[in-house]
Amino acid sequence: MEMKLPGQEGFEASSAPRNIPSGELDSNPGPGTGPSPDGPSDTESKELGVPKDPLLFIQLNELLGWPQALEWRETGSSSASLLLDMGEMPPITLSTSIHLHHRWVLFEEKLEVAAGRWSAPHVPTLVLPSLQKLRSLLAEGLVLLDCPAQSLLELVEQVTRVESLSPELRGQLQALLLQRPQHYNQTTGTRPCWGSTLPRKASDNEEAPLREQYQNPLRQKLPPGAEAGTVLAGELGFLAQPLGAFVRLRDPVVLGSLTEVSLPSRFFCLLLGPPMLGKGYHEMGRAAAVLLSDPQFQWSVRRASNLHDLLAALDAFLEEVTVLPPGRWDPTARIPPPKCLPSQHKRLPLQQREIRGPSGPRLTSAEDRHHHGPHAPSPELQRTGRLFGGLIQDVRRKAPWYLSDFLDALHLQCFSAVLYIYLATVTNAITFGGLLGDATDGAQGVLESFLGTAVAGAAFCLMAGQPLTILSSTGPVLVFERLLFSFSRDYSLDYLPFRLWVGIWVATFCLVLVATEASVLVRYFTRFTEEGFCALISLIFIYDAVGKMLNLTHTYPIQKPGSSAYGCLCQYPGPGGNDSQWIRTRPKDRDDIVSMDLGLINASLLPPPECTRQGGQPRGPGCHTVPDIAFFSLLLFLTSFFFAMALKCIKTSRFFPSVVRKGLSDFSSVLAILLGCGLDAFLGLATPKLMVPREFKPTLPGRGWLVSPFGTNPWWWSVAAALPALLLSILIFMDQQITAVILNRVEYRLQKGAGFHLDLFCVAVLMLLTSVLGLPWYVSATVISLAHMDSLRRESRACAPGELPNFLGIREQRLTGLVVFILTGASIFLAPVLKFIPMPVLYGIFLYMGVAALSSIQFTKRVKLLLMPAKHQPDLLLLRHVPLTRVHLFTAIQLVCLGLLWIIKSTPAAIIFPLMLLGLVGVRKALERVFSPQELLWLDELMPEEERSIPEKGLEPEHSFSGSDSDDSELMYQPKAPEINISVN
Amino acid sequence: MEMKLPGQEGFEASSAPRNIPSGELDSNPGPGTGPSPDGPSDTESKELGVPKDPLLFIQLNELLGWPQALEWRETGSSSASLLLDMGEMPPITLSTSIHLHHRWVLFEEKLEVAAGRWSAPHVPTLVLPSLQKLRSLLAEGLVLLDCPAQSLLELVEQVTRVESLSPELRGQLQALLLQRPQHYNQTTGTRPCWGSTLPRKASDNEEAPLREQYQNPLRQKLPPGAEAGTVLAGELGFLAQPLGAFVRLRDPVVLGSLTEVSLPSRFFCLLLGPPMLGKGYHEMGRAAAVLLSDPQFQWSVRRASNLHDLLAALDAFLEEVTVLPPGRWDPTARIPPPKCLPSQHKRLPLQQREIRGPSGPRLTSAEDRHHHGPHAPSPELQRTGRLFGGLIQDVRRKAPWYLSDFLDALHLQCFSAVLYIYLATVTNAITFGGLLGDATDGAQGVLESFLGTAVAGAAFCLMAGQPLTILSSTGPVLVFERLLFSFSRDYSLDYLPFRLWVGIWVATFCLVLVATEASVLVRYFTRFTEEGFCALISLIFIYDAVGKMLNLTHTYPIQKPGSSAYGCLCQYPGPGGNDSQWIRTRPKDRDDIVSMDLGLINASLLPPPECTRQGGQPRGPGCHTVPDIAFFSLLLFLTSFFFAMALKCIKTSRFFPSVVRKGLSDFSSVLAILLGCGLDAFLGLATPKLMVPREFKPTLPGRGWLVSPFGTNPWWWSVAAALPALLLSILIFMDQQITAVILNRVEYRLQKGAGFHLDLFCVAVLMLLTSVLGLPWYVSATVISLAHMDSLRRESRACAPGELPNFLGIREQRLTGLVVFILTGASIFLAPVLKFIPMPVLYGIFLYMGVAALSSIQFTKRVKLLLMPAKHQPDLLLLRHVPLTRVHLFTAIQLVCLGLLWIIKSTPAAIIFPLMLLGLVGVRKALERVFSPQELLWLDELMPEEERSIPEKGLEPEHSFSGSDSDDSELMYQPKAPEINISVN
Repeated sequence: MEMKLPGQEGFEASSAPRNIPSGELDSNPGPGTGPSPDGPSDTESKELGVPKDPLLFIQLNELLGWPQALEWRETGSSSASLLLDMGEMPPITLSTSIHLHHRWVLFEEKLEVAAGRWSAPHVPTLVLPSLQKLRSLLAEGLVLLDCPAQSLLELVEQVTRVESLSPELRGQLQALLLQRPQHYNQTTGTRPCWGSTLPRKASDNEEAPLREQYQNPLRQKLPPGAEAGTVLAGELGFLAQPLGAFVRLRDPVVLGSLTEVSLPSRFFCLLLGPPMLGKGYHEMGRAAAVLLSDPQFQWSVRRASNLHDLLAALDAFLEEVTVLPPGRWDPTARIPPPKCLPSQHKRLPLQQREIRGPSGPRLTSAEDRHHHGPHAPSPELQRTGRLFGGLIQDVRRKAPWYLSDFLDALHLQCFSAVLYIYLATVTNAITFGGLLGDATDGAQGVLESFLGTAVAGAAFCLMAGQPLTILSSTGPVLVFERLLFSFSRDYSLDYLPFRLWVGIWVATFCLVLVATEASVLVRYFTRFTEEGFCALISLIFIYDAVGKMLNLTHTYPIQKPGSSAYGCLCQYPGPGGNDSQWIRTRPKDRDDIVSMDLGLINASLLPPPECTRQGGQPRGPGCHTVPDIAFFSLLLFLTSFFFAMALKCIKTSRFFPSVVRKGLSDFSSVLAILLGCGLDAFLGLATPKLMVPREFKPTLPGRGWLVSPFGTNPWWWSVAAALPALLLSILIFMDQQITAVILNRVEYRLQKGAGFHLDLFCVAVLMLLTSVLGLPWYVSATVISLAHMDSLRRESRACAPGELPNFLGIREQRLTGLVVFILTGASIFLAPVLKFIPMPVLYGIFLYMGVAALSSIQFTKRVKLLLMPAKHQPDLLLLRHVPLTRVHLFTAIQLVCLGLLWIIKSTPAAIIFPLMLLGLVGVRKALERVFSPQELLWLDELMPEEERSIPEKGLEPEHSFSGSDSDDSELMYQPKAPEINISVN
Repeated sequence: MEMKLPGQEGFEASSAPRNIPSGELDSNPGPGTGPSPDGPSDTESKELGVPKDPLLFIQLNELLGWPQALEWRETGSSSASLLLDMGEMPPITLSTSIHLHHRWVLFEEKLEVAAGRWSAPHVPTLVLPSLQKLRSLLAEGLVLLDCPAQSLLELVEQVTRVESLSPELRGQLQALLLQRPQHYNQTTGTRPCWGSTLPRKASDNEEAPLREQYQNPLRQKLPPGAEAGTVLAGELGFLAQPLGAFVRLRDPVVLGSLTEVSLPSRFFCLLLGPPMLGKGYHEMGRAAAVLLSDPQFQWSVRRASNLHDLLAALDAFLEEVTVLPPGRWDPTARIPPPKCLPSQHKRLPLQQREIRGPSGPRLTSAEDRHHHGPHAPSPELQRTGRLFGGLIQDVRRKAPWYLSDFLDALHLQCFSAVLYIYLATVTNAITFGGLLGDATDGAQGVLESFLGTAVAGAAFCLMAGQPLTILSSTGPVLVFERLLFSFSRDYSLDYLPFRLWVGIWVATFCLVLVATEASVLVRYFTRFTEEGFCALISLIFIYDAVGKMLNLTHTYPIQKPGSSAYGCLCQYPGPGGNDSQWIRTRPKDRDDIVSMDLGLINASLLPPPECTRQGGQPRGPGCHTVPDIAFFSLLLFLTSFFFAMALKCIKTSRFFPSVVRKGLSDFSSVLAILLGCGLDAFLGLATPKLMVPREFKPTLPGRGWLVSPFGTNPWWWSVAAALPALLLSILIFMDQQITAVILNRVEYRLQKGAGFHLDLFCVAVLMLLTSVLGLPWYVSATVISLAHMDSLRRESRACAPGELPNFLGIREQRLTGLVVFILTGASIFLAPVLKFIPMPVLYGIFLYMGVAALSSIQFTKRVKLLLMPAKHQPDLLLLRHVPLTRVHLFTAIQLVCLGLLWIIKSTPAAIIFPLMLLGLVGVRKALERVFSPQELLWLDELMPEEERSIPEKGLEPEHSFSGSDSDDSELMYQPKAPEINISVN
C-alpha cells in the first residue's frame, strides 16, 4: 500500500467535494477546437490549482438464484435460494444469475425491471440497520486496499481467498462471480433485453468488454477518466457465514463485462451470505453503493490506508446523515434531486477549507451576494479622483483583451447565438420602430430603427467596455421621446432640429458624468430603485398597448344596431353630368336597384374604394366605418399576446425535447408576430398595418439624412433644449448603468472586467451621432443583453443523471454582437416585407413585453403575497426572516411611490418623470429610518453607508438573530431568487 | 406504575396508528345537531371497535441565557453561557429565559424568530448523532413512568431530585425551570409579542394557564382530549454533567403556562447539560420531540413500564428511520408534508395487524382497488338468477334506509350543497336546453329542459337506488337526439311522435335489461370502455362547439374589403306612393343626402330595422350583413371558454382564502355565463340569443304538453322506432351504468349500498314519462353527481398543521337532490330572463365542458406521454411497471379506436354509434391477446374472466415481478390517479 505525505493529502483534499470535479466535465461540444490549453476545463483546474479525483460510477449487481422460473416468480429470490440446502452443495447451474439493479453517479437510478427502463434519478434513501450491518460485515470481512489485481479473474481469486471457505466452495463461488452479469441494454430500446444467460467460463477472452458496454448512452455522459465501483450483493444458500470484501484496486482496470459501462474499476465490494429474513443483502449492497457515491466518503476511502480508516469514514458518514422519522415519511418514496447540491464545504476539516480555491461552480447568487456583493464593491466602481480617471482605467483594463475579444468567438456556439440575437434584435427594431413611428407621427420609423440599431449597435460592440451588451431602443427612452414629441408639438417646434439639440446637450452632460466618474454612484441604485424604474416603465408599456388598441376602436367604430352611422352612397362629381345616365333610374327589375345609378342625384351604392376608382366620392356616415376591423384587431392583439405568453411558458413544460422547447420560447415574439401576420393575411381584412417607406429614405417625407441644426425653430430653443436634455441624461444614465450593473454581476463570472465609464462614453458619442442623423436613441437593453450572455454560456456538457449542467462562464467577445448588427443593417432591404405586419400584433407584443418585464421582478412577487393567505405563501427565505407586516409595509410603500410616479406621468409635467425616478433613491434613503438594516438586507440591498454601519458579522442575517440555530446552509438550498431585474428593452 | 394485561395491550394496539386517531377529529361544524349518537365520530369508532390514544401536541422549549443582549447577538447563546464559570454559581437573573422554538402535531413547525411566524409544517429531519446522544442521556438519566405529579412545581421537584445535583444547584435549577416560557403570541398578530420577561416565583396562582394559551388558534385545531408533551432543552454553565429526565405523568395535568396551548400534559422531557460544541442540546431536544411525535414510539412509550421498554421503543424507531446521505441532501432543507402519510400498518407487530379493523381513513383508491376492487365484486352486482331478482334485492336493500334518507339531511352542510348543485343544475338545464333547441329546431328547448329536469330529477331522487345521483341531459343522449332528429328529418317524419315511440321502446328494452339483471355486465365496462366512451363524447362536444361557432360566421359573414355585399337601401312599398314626397329629392345641402328619401325611386338609406318600422323593405346585398357580429361572437365564445377554464384552475392556486377559491372554481360556468352576458349587454350588439318562449307553453309552436301517438307518421314507424330505440337503449345503459359504477366506488365509503337495477328501472320509467310529455331524456350525469357527493363529504374538521382533512364518508340522503329539483322547477318562471344569454357564450361553456371532460381521463395523460421525452415524464407508477413502448401501443390502439368511431360518426351511419361504443368492449377483450394480464392491470382494469385466470397473488404487480424488491408501499405514496372517469354531463 502506498503511503502519502500528510501535506500532500491536505493539498488534495481541497478538491474532494463532488460538486467541484463535475466542473471539469466540460468537453468542447463544437468541432475543431479540441482540448486547447485555453479550454474551459483547464481554466477551471487552474483556478482551483489542484488535481481532482475522478468521477465514480457505481453499480449494484445482485445475485439472484432460482431453480425454476415459476418458483422464483412466486416466492422471490430469497426463498428460492433456501431450497439449496447447506449440506447438499448442488452444482452451480443456470439457476443463478447476476442482475444489475441500481446505479449511481450522483443520484440513484433503479432499474424498473417490469417497465424495462431506468427510473428517474432520485436521492437515495437507506434504512439505518443496513448501514449498521454493512459496517459490521466490513469490520469482520476482507479489506484490500491498493489490490494489484489486473483482471476480474485475479480479483475474484483474491476476494475468495478467505479462511472460512472450503476449496470446493471457493471454486463454486468463483465460477458464480465470473458469470456475465445481465445488464439491461438500453440501446436496443423496446423491451428489456438481457444479456446471454449462458454460464461463462473465466477466460481472458471473456474479460474483453462487450459491445453493449460501449454503446451504453451513459458512457457519453461520463467524463473521460471516470472510474467505476461495483457492489455485488446477494444471498447464497451454500454459504455458512457472511462474506464481505471491500477492494480498492491499485490501478483501475476494466473488469470485463462486470460494469454496465466499460470503465476502469477502482472499487469492488462483495456482500454475500446465507439467506436471511427481509431484503438484507440487497439493502446492504445499496448502502455500500450509496456510501461510495458520497463525495466525502469517496475522498476518504481513496486515501484510506487500513480498515480503521475505512470504518472511520463510514462513521463520519453516519455522523452527518439526515434522518427522517418513519411515521412521517414513507421510506420508499423517491425524492427528486435537489436543485442545488448541498455544499461540501462544511464537511471538510477546517484546515482543508482554508486552502480551498475560489468558490465552486454551484455557488448560488445568494452566496455571491454575501461573499462578494455588499462587502467589496467591484474595482470598476472605485473612484480614482482624477478627471476621466475611470474612463482611462477602463480603457487600460479592456485594451489587453482586445485581440482575444475576436479570437474567443471562434466557437460553434457563437453561430447559434448570432442567429438568436439577430432575430431578437430585428423583432425589437420592428416593434420599437413601429411604435416610435406611431408616437412621433413618422418623425421616426422602422427604417430609422433598422439603420440606427445597426450603426449604433455595431459601433458600441467595437468600442464598449462590455461588448456583450446589445444596444436597443429601450422602454424609458421610448417613453421620453414620446413625451418630447408631444412637448415640441405643444410649442409648435420643428421636432427633429429640436431633438438634435437635446441630443447634443445629452452627449455633453454624459461626458461630464464620465469625466467626474459619476458611474460610481451606481451603487446607490439598489433593487428598490431598479424595480421602481422597471415597474413604472412596464406599466407604461401595458397602459400604452391597451390604450392604442382601444384607440383603434375609435378609428374603426363598432356599429351598434341603433347607430346612425349606417349607409353610404357613391356620389358623382356634380349635377351637371350626363342626363341620359339619369334616365335609367326607374328599375325594371327590382333586384338591380343596387348595382345601378340612382335617380335624380348622380349616386350609386358602390363600395367606397370602387367609387373612388370610378371618379365618385363616397358620402354618408357609413362610408368611413370599415366593419369588423375593431373586433378583428382586438382578436389579433389578444392572440399575439397570449400566444407569446404561452410560448414563453413552454420552456418549463414537460413536452417536447428541451431543444424544441427552448427554440419555441426563445422565439416567442417572432412566432407570435408571424402567427398574427398569417391570421391577418388569411382573412385579408383591411387592418391598420405598419408603415414602411417604399425606398431607402427617411420616413418623414422631405428630409435628408442629416438633420438641419435649427429648422424653423428660433435659435434660443437650442439653449432651452438643455433642460429636457438634463432630464434625458438622468434617464439614460439610470437606464444604461442599471443594465450595466446587472450584466456585470459576479454570478456571471466575467473574466475580462467591466467598463462602466467607457460604456457611458460610447453611449454619449452615439447619442450625438443618432441625433445628427435623426435616428432613434440607443442605450443598453437588459433583457436582450442577458439573452445574449445566456446564449454564450459555457457549461459542462457531460453531466450525471439528475445533475444540472454546471455553469463555467461566458464566452466574452465582441464578434457575435458585431455580426448581429451587420446582419441587422443588411435587413434594411427586407423592410418592404414589413408592411404586412398589422399594428394590433405589434401592440400585443408590446403588451407581452410589459407583462413579462413586470412579472420578472421581486416587487411583483411581493404584491402577489398581499393576495395570499399566510399559510399558502411559498416558503421564501425573505418570509423566514422579516415579519409579514414589514414585508407588506415595504410593498405598500413601493406601491405608493409607483402611484405617485404614475400621477406625475399623467400630468402635463410628465416630462420630468426621470427626475422623479431619481427621487426613488431619496425615498430609499429615507426608508432607513423605517426599516432596520437587517430587514432592508432581505427586502432590498444595502447602500454603501449602511454597509459600513453594520458590523461585518451582522451582514449575514442568520447569525444576528437566532442564537442557537444557524440556518446557514438554508441559504444554499433555497437561494434568494436570482436577482436579475429585468427592465423593459 | 400500572401494569397492563398483555391481551389488553394487544387490543389497544390496533388503534395505535396516528392516521386513525385523527379520523375522530370530526366535530360537527353546524349548529343544532350536537354530538348525536349517530354522529360521524361515533360511527368511525364503532367501525374500528377500539378506543384510541389521544392526539399528542409536542413542543420544544429552549433555555437561552445571555448576560447582555448585545453579547448574545454576537456570540450566540452557548458562548454566553460559557461566561458563567462552573465554580462561581451566579444567581439566576434576567439573563436566562425559556423560549418556545419548535412544535409538532404531525409535522414540525419552527418559530421563525425574526419573521415572528410559524414556519410551514414540514417533515422533521434529524441528524443521527443527536438521536444517539439522546439515547445515552436517557439511558443514564431519570425515567419516571406514571409520575403522580399534579402541578409543574411537583414535576420540577421530582425531576431535579437527582444525586448529581447539590441542593444549591437544585434550587437554582428549579427556579429556572419554573420561569414562564416566552411563547410567541399569534393572536396579537403584527410583531413577535413575547410574554413578560419578569422572573416568576413558583406559586399556585402562577400555575393557572394564561389567557393567550386559550386564545391560541392551534387550540381550535386540536381535538378534545388531546394531550401535550413538552421537551425542555438547553445548556447551563453551572451544570457539571448532563441532566436527562423523561417523565410520563400518570394523569395528564395542565402544567401552568408551560405549553403554548393549554392542554393537559402527558410527557415531559428535560435535557440539560454543560455547554458543548455545536447545537448539541437543541438537536437532542428536537430528537426527543420527533420521537414523541412518532405514532409507533408514542404507542410504545404510553405502555412502557420501565427504562428498558423506553430504550427498546427508541431502538425500534432507529430501525425504521429513513436515512439520506449527506452528500446528496442538505439536512436543513425543509421537506413539505407528503400527500399521504405512510401506512403504519406494516410497523405493527404481526398479531396486532390481524385484529386491526377495516381500512383506515387514508386508504387510497389504489389500495381499495387491490383490496376490494377486482377480487370481490360488490354484492349489488352479483347475479341472483331470477327474473327481476336484482331489482327486488335492490328494493329490499334500500327500503330500511328510506326514513334515514330524509333524517340524515338535517345538517347545515346540506344547505350549501343544495345551493351549489342547484346553480350547477340550472346552468346545465340552460346549456343543454339551449343546445337541444338548436339541434332539434325547437322541438326541444329551454322550457322543456327546465320542466323535464325538475320532474325527472325529483322523481329519481325519491325512487332511485342511489339518490345521490343527479339526473341531467347528458352528452351521449344529446348527441343521439341530434342524430335522431336529423334522421327523422331525412325521412320527413313528425319528430315528436316518432320520438315518443323510440322512448316507449327504450323503456321496454330497459325493463328487459332490468328483468334479466343485465346490470351485472357492468363489470365488463373497464376503463378502456369508459374512457373511449368519454373521449368520443368529449370530442363531439368540442367539434360541435367549434362548428356551431364557425357556423355563426356564415350567418353573420365578415365583410372583406373587395366583397360585393355592400350597400343596402330602404325601399318603400311601391311606385304608387306620394309624389310630393319624391319632389324633395334634389339636395340643397349635400350633407342631408342620407337622411332624406331618394329621388325617383321611393327608397332611403335608413337602417333595416328603422326601415321596417316605417313600412319599408330593406333591399340590397348589404342588408343582411350585420357587421361586427361574427368577430364579437368569437370573442364572447373565447372569453367564456377561457374564463371558465381560468376559474377552474384557481382552485389550485395560492391566491385567496380557500373558501373564495372553491367558490370561484365551483361556479366557474355560472360566472363565465354571467361575464359573457355582461359583455354582450355592455356593447349591445345584436348577437344571436337563446330562444325562450314568452309564456309557459312548449317551445314548438302549436303542440300541447302531451305528444300525440302518431302525428302525421305512418303507423308502422312506431314499430320501426324499435331499431333506433335499441341503439339508444345501449347508449342509455352504458351512460347510466358507467356513472353508477363510478358513484358507487368503494373509496366513497357509501353505507347504504347501491341499486344498479333499481336505478335503471327508474330511468326506464322516466324515459316513458319524458317521451310522452315531449321533454328531454335524462340519465345520471357523472360530473354533477360527483360534485353533489363532494359537497356532502364528511371530513374531519380539526386537523393538525400539515395534515390534509380526513375523509369520513358521504351524507347519503335524498333530500338535497329533491330540493335542488324543486328549486329548478320553480326556476321555470325565471325563463324570460334567459333570453339575454348570447348563444356564443353557451357554445363556449359547451367547449369548456368537452375540454374539461377530455382532460380528466387517464387516456389523455397517456396521449400527453407520447409528446414527452422519456426523461421528462412524470414518475407514474404505471411507467414503473409497464414498458414505455407497451404504454404507447395501448394508447395508439385507443387512438385508432377513437378514429374509427369518429369516422363512423361522420358517415350517414352515424346513428349506430352506440353499437360501436359497445364494440369497444369487444376490442378490449381482444387486447388480452396482445397484452399480458399484468400490463392490463396497470393500463386498464381486469375483466371478470381475467381475474380468475391470474393467481390471487399475481394481481398485485409488485409481487409478481421483482423478486428481491417489494415496492409495496410505493402504492401508498404515489397512488394511481384517482380513477374517476368523468363523462360529459
